[in-house]
Amino acid sequence: MYADDQVVKALRISIDEIAPGQATARMRVTADMVNGHGIAHGGYVFLLADTAFAYACNSHGPVTVARACEIAFLSPAREGDDLTATASERVRMERNGIYDISVRRANGDVLAEMRGHSKTVRPGPGGTDAQAGPPQPS
Amino acid sequence: MYADDQVVKALRISIDEIAPGQATARMRVTADMVNGHGIAHGGYVFLLADTAFAYACNSHGPVTVARACEIAFLSPAREGDDLTATASERVRMERNGIYDISVRRANGDVLAEMRGHSKTVRPGPGGTDAQAGPPQPS
Amino acid sequence: MYADDQVVKALRISIDEIAPGQATARMRVTADMVNGHGIAHGGYVFLLADTAFAYACNSHGPVTVARACEIAFLSPAREGDDLTATASERVRMERNGIYDISVRRANGDVLAEMRGHSKTVRPGPGGTDAQAGPPQPS
Amino acid sequence: MYADDQVVKALRISIDEIAPGQATARMRVTADMVNGHGIAHGGYVFLLADTAFAYACNSHGPVTVARACEIAFLSPAREGDDLTATASERVRMERNGIYDISVRRANGDVLAEMRGHSKTVRPGPGGTDAQAGPPQPS
Repeated sequence: MYADDQVVKALRISIDEIAPGQATARMRVTADMVNGHGIAHGGYVFLLADTAFAYACNSHGPVTVARACEIAFLSPAREGDDLTATASERVRMERNGIYDISVRRANGDVLAEMRGHSKTVRPGPGGTDAQAGPPQPS
Repeated sequence: MYADDQVVKALRISIDEIAPGQATARMRVTADMVNGHGIAHGGYVFLLADTAFAYACNSHGPVTVARACEIAFLSPAREGDDLTATASERVRMERNGIYDISVRRANGDVLAEMRGHSKTVRPGPGGTDAQAGPPQPS
Repeated sequence: MYADDQVVKALRISIDEIAPGQATARMRVTADMVNGHGIAHGGYVFLLADTAFAYACNSHGPVTVARACEIAFLSPAREGDDLTATASERVRMERNGIYDISVRRANGDVLAEMRGHSKTVRPGPGGTDAQAGPPQPS
Repeated sequence: MYADDQVVKALRISIDEIAPGQATARMRVTADMVNGHGIAHGGYVFLLADTAFAYACNSHGPVTVARACEIAFLSPAREGDDLTATASERVRMERNGIYDISVRRANGDVLAEMRGHSKTVRPGPGGTDAQAGPPQPS
């Protein structure tokens, strides 16, 4: 999944600490991410959180996508800030999962809180659902 | 606001049809926006919707930021897709606003539906709140 | 559906103006609905909005339930207020639907805005999905 | 707050385990809470979660209300089910708070997950904001 992920490469997002239902993503806010108010565009804060969410909900193997997300912006990020998004699984039932993702500055301040809702669409490598089509390259 | 917005320049987002409480943002999905599942990273779909939301909620003049957003992903976008996000104001009361944003492909299919919650933080050019500090350059 | 709905009877909610994708529900705030802050419990405002949502998303026939809802509380309701919730369909794709529901006081002031996400679980009377089990009594 | 709360009395909701940022609310699903699909109206599941949220976010003293809530319904509740909603604080900054609330059946199954966003409006007994008006009776 990481090997084909052009977004993490282009934005120099690092993914680490992947465990079942968990993932952490890190990114530095660049000049290109600043909006007309002089603060980081909320879209990039979301994107980082969504990335941690994606790696966490795909950590179990089967291909899983975001169905919906809610994000609350608590404090702005600025150019040069090193942001860390940590995702952890809250509940998983059948094909549905709920994940909580916090985005923090290097000093630990919370910038944003996201809740992500996932749905599993087909098995990854090692999956057992023979009807679901060929294995994913990711 | 547009003049200082590095994000819309870097991603070649066009902003048009701004009217009170309304804005439209357009963006083409590039190779850099594709994630490990071979579809557009939901973060970029969000970012486009959030951009339309930002221009719509700032259309009244006073500086307004996103407090929270909810997005539902209905169908994936792919490289080369031309996406259009249209934002329209649902309600505005005191410093709070609610906006509905639809993201569509060129053929009109809806890819995502966002609801954005805004809060006004200080007046823009022409604002009347003398305590709110110097006029914003944006 | 209405005939078996004990909630609308117990709370004297009236349902009217049902059309494809649309429904309106009305309720008077009673003394039993007031919380420790002296205002209507947000749970009852949600319940009224959720009722309009339920009748709107079931208006097409197949049995449809709420998957998730987001509600923003803009202004409190008080004992004796006559509340009206109007639900309208925003989009419907396959088994998923999104509905917008506004709750207003008699004077037209908006108290709350809800967005509801529905999923269709089996056909109602006249449905065509033979695998889905016996017709619902509702 | 509890003394004036007509809702918890009318619905026989018990509130317990209140600690700073935490609260638990319990309720039995009665026949009056069943909708036209034969399951508990989602509005009552929300109401119970919202009650735990309210007691948790008011546990610090100052009067605090719900600004917005998101709820995901994972599994239906039925007449006679004993439901427990547990609320815990995720983050609190200035006048804003975010709380996570899980609703479970007696066997521990999760029925619903809510996230609540609170705002503090004025101090409770012992508060220090002299401009905020007379003490609340709650």
